[in-house]
Amino acid sequence: MAPPPIKHKALLNVDLGEGYGNYVCGPDLELLPLIDHANIACGFHAGDPLIMQETVRNCKKHNIKVGAHPGLPDIQGFGRREIKMSPEELTAIVVYQVGALKGFLDQEGVPLHHVKPHGILYGMMCRDYDTAKAVMEGIPKGVPVFGLAGTNMEKAANDLGIPFWAEMYGDVKYSNDGMLVIDRKKKPWILEDVRKHVSQQLNSQSVTATDGSVVQLPVKDYPISICCHSDSPGCLGIIKTTKEVIDEFNKEHGRM
Amino acid sequence: MAPPPIKHKALLNVDLGEGYGNYVCGPDLELLPLIDHANIACGFHAGDPLIMQETVRNCKKHNIKVGAHPGLPDIQGFGRREIKMSPEELTAIVVYQVGALKGFLDQEGVPLHHVKPHGILYGMMCRDYDTAKAVMEGIPKGVPVFGLAGTNMEKAANDLGIPFWAEMYGDVKYSNDGMLVIDRKKKPWILEDVRKHVSQQLNSQSVTATDGSVVQLPVKDYPISICCHSDSPGCLGIIKTTKEVIDEFNKEHGRM
Amino acid sequence: MAPPPIKHKALLNVDLGEGYGNYVCGPDLELLPLIDHANIACGFHAGDPLIMQETVRNCKKHNIKVGAHPGLPDIQGFGRREIKMSPEELTAIVVYQVGALKGFLDQEGVPLHHVKPHGILYGMMCRDYDTAKAVMEGIPKGVPVFGLAGTNMEKAANDLGIPFWAEMYGDVKYSNDGMLVIDRKKKPWILEDVRKHVSQQLNSQSVTATDGSVVQLPVKDYPISICCHSDSPGCLGIIKTTKEVIDEFNKEHGRM
Amino acid sequence: MAPPPIKHKALLNVDLGEGYGNYVCGPDLELLPLIDHANIACGFHAGDPLIMQETVRNCKKHNIKVGAHPGLPDIQGFGRREIKMSPEELTAIVVYQVGALKGFLDQEGVPLHHVKPHGILYGMMCRDYDTAKAVMEGIPKGVPVFGLAGTNMEKAANDLGIPFWAEMYGDVKYSNDGMLVIDRKKKPWILEDVRKHVSQQLNSQSVTATDGSVVQLPVKDYPISICCHSDSPGCLGIIKTTKEVIDEFNKEHGRM
Repeated sequence: MAPPPIKHKALLNVDLGEGYGNYVCGPDLELLPLIDHANIACGFHAGDPLIMQETVRNCKKHNIKVGAHPGLPDIQGFGRREIKMSPEELTAIVVYQVGALKGFLDQEGVPLHHVKPHGILYGMMCRDYDTAKAVMEGIPKGVPVFGLAGTNMEKAANDLGIPFWAEMYGDVKYSNDGMLVIDRKKKPWILEDVRKHVSQQLNSQSVTATDGSVVQLPVKDYPISICCHSDSPGCLGIIKTTKEVIDEFNKEHGRM
Repeated sequence: MAPPPIKHKALLNVDLGEGYGNYVCGPDLELLPLIDHANIACGFHAGDPLIMQETVRNCKKHNIKVGAHPGLPDIQGFGRREIKMSPEELTAIVVYQVGALKGFLDQEGVPLHHVKPHGILYGMMCRDYDTAKAVMEGIPKGVPVFGLAGTNMEKAANDLGIPFWAEMYGDVKYSNDGMLVIDRKKKPWILEDVRKHVSQQLNSQSVTATDGSVVQLPVKDYPISICCHSDSPGCLGIIKTTKEVIDEFNKEHGRM
Repeated sequence: MAPPPIKHKALLNVDLGEGYGNYVCGPDLELLPLIDHANIACGFHAGDPLIMQETVRNCKKHNIKVGAHPGLPDIQGFGRREIKMSPEELTAIVVYQVGALKGFLDQEGVPLHHVKPHGILYGMMCRDYDTAKAVMEGIPKGVPVFGLAGTNMEKAANDLGIPFWAEMYGDVKYSNDGMLVIDRKKKPWILEDVRKHVSQQLNSQSVTATDGSVVQLPVKDYPISICCHSDSPGCLGIIKTTKEVIDEFNKEHGRM
Repeated sequence: MAPPPIKHKALLNVDLGEGYGNYVCGPDLELLPLIDHANIACGFHAGDPLIMQETVRNCKKHNIKVGAHPGLPDIQGFGRREIKMSPEELTAIVVYQVGALKGFLDQEGVPLHHVKPHGILYGMMCRDYDTAKAVMEGIPKGVPVFGLAGTNMEKAANDLGIPFWAEMYGDVKYSNDGMLVIDRKKKPWILEDVRKHVSQQLNSQSVTATDGSVVQLPVKDYPISICCHSDSPGCLGIIKTTKEVIDEFNKEHGRM
């Protein structure tokens, strides 16, 4: 039986500020006009104080809601290598990173909109309840978390009374258990595949997994944000395409 | 002409939480009962998220006022190797570190009492006005800075409207220009020398510099905190001795 | 059936140079007169260029054979947090670290005696053949590896034609599958327990595991080195005790 | 009086392998067919074990001579922020980095051709004799150093008996004291300016400094290599242009 249609307007989030020192990650300046939510890297998997400051200012100028994007402490691995940490340590690295970002937000008078864990940490939270809980215990009271519905992220958020936003993915594939397939480096996409991938998620709350099976992704009545990555090859095209599907979906369904 | 006597009660501050991972720095737990202010390392020159969390909790238990202790990004050099950074970068590393510590303070409901820059960064601020200003621009509005009176730290704080606390040093020597002599590793002290060193600063607002000359250290009517270091060899003895001199000074002068 | 008695003389190895910047790990200078082999940290889990240089020089003075002690890239976790890396990356981090140590050895005209992987990397090699193989592919031709007999370390060394030394442990417990129990921080030992632990391993090639069961540790005819850790609480006592058991064992059996 | 013309063939060197983890620096693969010498980053200011391994293999395939490119320990600052280190520490970081690169060279059977210090470290060596000497004391016996003639690099190399290669710069400007102007990020060049800049250096052993004055750069009879940077914007054009000037110069003068 099909789930009831999504009642919220779909929004678009992208990870920003994922450069490091002289190293550039995505075309952040070109993405700013296209997105609703930015997840700003906090210096553990990417980003540094100067980049964070600049990215917060850019988001403010473009009226983009800002979330913290904490990751595992591993710039060389871009937060995409699993590291085994204790629950206490997971909580502490989230408190630290979110606090650091809040420093810049406070300076600019911008509120913290949400927290979205990065990379393999996000994947570990989906798969493991204790990891999800430990990470979420580092989120300041009342701040929503972005995550994958139907996984331990949703469950832990609900158990801890943390507002939950359901994400869908424009440029990440799913395995047949509804989990994301996180590669250390993103692979290129054909734009037509992006269109189908996003459209299927929004319109039927399902996805065609890497093994060809169709997996249900019911989002209940959570608010929705579709995620794309600024380090995907051809990310500008992917994000524009995703935005087209979103805009169409929002218009069609009369969502505001 | 002698300066007017100090009217404030003298207090005692120590850097805490300066371990890193498995590495231990000072005997923090033994120092907690002795001090008034803790400067907690923020992960750039020392400290890590777990240590910061634990140190904040310990300070709360012992009713110690907590300050942020931001340093240059250099754990290997313990923030005691000069690194040339732009003013923008200096501001940004302070915003980041203070924000990170505030994350832990907010979790525990403890207010941020002050900011005290660490090591060679402190020395660079004393000597160079632009460095002092850049660092202080990263301090949240209304939060006091601890620094050396008579140097660019005092001047920049006044220019920026930042409340200023004058520090004296229990275990650091001064050069004949009134600046601190910052070694990469602290050397041992004879306790009787500590007693004289602190007593001279408190009672005559002067110090005998490394070249034997007597340098004036007028503290005007700023609040006063005497600093000792948890990584000095024999630090427990130094801190106890300093506390004795302080207690005597406070009692004698009927300061509250 | 009991294995044939060990025919080689037992030797003693300790990890040295595991400080970092100002941070001290073990009492290296006190251990130098007691040991045969040093495993010198290479800067990834501990150690830095200055410490490596000094440690190599100290070993040369004391006529101690020097091995490289490469670890996972994680100073904060002291190489004791599991990080998932590709086989290519594991090989590359070993080549890098061993090469760096060889730089200091070449300067002093000291040969590289062996390679001993550190911490959780060692544990991962024991449990997983591919990890063992990937790490060993980074060892220069002809240089022996120290490892745990009966595990994938022994098997991979044999498959790759790398000379193998069997280790026993003075201050680490074993689980009932013959693997080491690697804690992030070492716990204290009672010296009498160390004596029994080492003696049982040397004299009956077995160990009493954490669950009380007796596990066989046959060392065949590999050369033997007993490992102790300089970061164990009370390490000097542990190492002296281990050395006593070793000396007795060597004398008793007329081993040279 | 004009210096005697250069008698050696001019060669072309470029820094390679200056990415980090997922971060890319220059278009290394496109540069390989154009250059004679590669200076491979050693992991302190850029590069990591995987990148070093791959870069060494690529250089071997293209028959490019490989040098080590050690820098200050500062990936975030790309080795372009001055850090004050003791002479002992400077020597040790060079031994470490050169040793690490030699690990990969030994694996591939490729000899170490030279050492070229990176970024601000190079600039510090030009200006300060003690820094130049300390760095060079970390270079393995008999291995040449690339540097700027007429500065403390030349003097220290001669004093220590280290073979010296004189560099000229295709994409870096000079100040009126014959020193390089090292920016944290490279600025774009007009190709015609590159052509004139290189040609003037090669043909008249002089350069027009940033203040318009003409500075002599006599290279005596040292071997010559012209340096370009893979992180300059438009580096492929700069390097092709430099190569054209070099090829013309070598042909014209019948240099082999």
